[in-house]
Amino acid sequence: MTANSLTSWVLEGIPLVRPGDDLATILLEAAGDDLRDGDVLVVAQKVFSKAQDRYAALNTVTPSPEAEALAVETEKDPRVVELILGESREVLRKRPGVIIVVHRLGMVMANAGIDASNVERADDDSEQVLLLPVDPDHDCAHLRGEIRARKGVDVAVIMNDSVGRAWRSGTVGIAIGASGVPSLRDLRGQDDMFGRPLQSSIVGVADELAAAASILQGQAAEAAPAVVIRGVDLSGREIPAKGLIRDVSEDLFR
Amino acid sequence: MTANSLTSWVLEGIPLVRPGDDLATILLEAAGDDLRDGDVLVVAQKVFSKAQDRYAALNTVTPSPEAEALAVETEKDPRVVELILGESREVLRKRPGVIIVVHRLGMVMANAGIDASNVERADDDSEQVLLLPVDPDHDCAHLRGEIRARKGVDVAVIMNDSVGRAWRSGTVGIAIGASGVPSLRDLRGQDDMFGRPLQSSIVGVADELAAAASILQGQAAEAAPAVVIRGVDLSGREIPAKGLIRDVSEDLFR
Repeated sequence: MTANSLTSWVLEGIPLVRPGDDLATILLEAAGDDLRDGDVLVVAQKVFSKAQDRYAALNTVTPSPEAEALAVETEKDPRVVELILGESREVLRKRPGVIIVVHRLGMVMANAGIDASNVERADDDSEQVLLLPVDPDHDCAHLRGEIRARKGVDVAVIMNDSVGRAWRSGTVGIAIGASGVPSLRDLRGQDDMFGRPLQSSIVGVADELAAAASILQGQAAEAAPAVVIRGVDLSGREIPAKGLIRDVSEDLFR
Repeated sequence: MTANSLTSWVLEGIPLVRPGDDLATILLEAAGDDLRDGDVLVVAQKVFSKAQDRYAALNTVTPSPEAEALAVETEKDPRVVELILGESREVLRKRPGVIIVVHRLGMVMANAGIDASNVERADDDSEQVLLLPVDPDHDCAHLRGEIRARKGVDVAVIMNDSVGRAWRSGTVGIAIGASGVPSLRDLRGQDDMFGRPLQSSIVGVADELAAAASILQGQAAEAAPAVVIRGVDLSGREIPAKGLIRDVSEDLFR
């Protein structure tokens, strides 16, 4: 199947998500009866993290000596640095304001994806930040299963986040979790328009969908965490988002 | 303005583009009367390059000693390596099969964006490859101006290409040229949902649009080089695609 057009829209009326909230219930309420087989539901990482209570209260964090030293070097809060290190396998680069790490999930990200934007203060008014979910691919598969069980529709689910990149300014949406999507599509077996085999053509389908949804999600006060994309060619072998992480042995930029 | 939905579609019936073809004529014929003010027209780099006759016939290329040595090291055709070096400011990384360079336009790209896929042989059946256009931002502004002059509609134009990335597998569409688009949107002055200033939120709008179009363009035999995206929030200062290139002084991954 070749898709010739797409439509995408924001699920309106999603309330602020709180720890313990059931995302499937919230999203299905917002979607009404408007989800169909083959739709791609893209949901921002932040609402998964909030529902899972991945908050960390800074006044409960005791920085290690390593975190204290790195905090001085990067001019960051040592408690936040402690949390960054706890979420990371390795620090790749550092400079004032930013620590670029290999997240425990494998993604290369600034500050381990920890962000204080759009994170409300705790009930006691103490400062808190929000960590990435423990297992985003699992979360997407779970949400997909819940939607199938409750509504009988088979949607694909992507969890996206906005990240900085090497070489290029500006953040773009990427897929940090996925279910029901060929996150990578290998076109190398196919021929080009002139009948010759394509050369380097493994497409990051889930990242392109994550970026497309990000156009509508906004980053500021809009609060549009969930977007549906209809019309996507989802043919090909299903690959979770962790398949998008380049193997260290093939990565020339670490 | 906040956009709540987008539609995107392939312009059908675009013929094989040949050197000297007028892209505005071809695209407007394919679009019919269906372009509106504010639409974003995303066109693949390849058709710009073909219309501009950016072909290089390999049998006319004499590799330098530097290109010969690099060709041995990377197991590539020395004539292609000569062309890659001619299009580049600097070689960043190399290994068998791939040479990652800073293109003369500033983008970090494998093989300087030179690709033999979907490039027909020359009339005398000799092998040829296709280089990137000389000035993609200019080309987008020119095409935009032609569409405005002939049809009276003010569309934004993006030239996209599919590129590999650091850290992540799979290519994604990026904007290598743009006109009428806030290629970067700086949200740092805005507040988050809780009224606090956003932290690191400069969004790569044109790259997200380029990726969204790429979902429909395909890479293989589909030949869908032009996509229209309708409903995009284009508010903000217009910035060409070269604004997406991270300054060397701010780039931690070269």
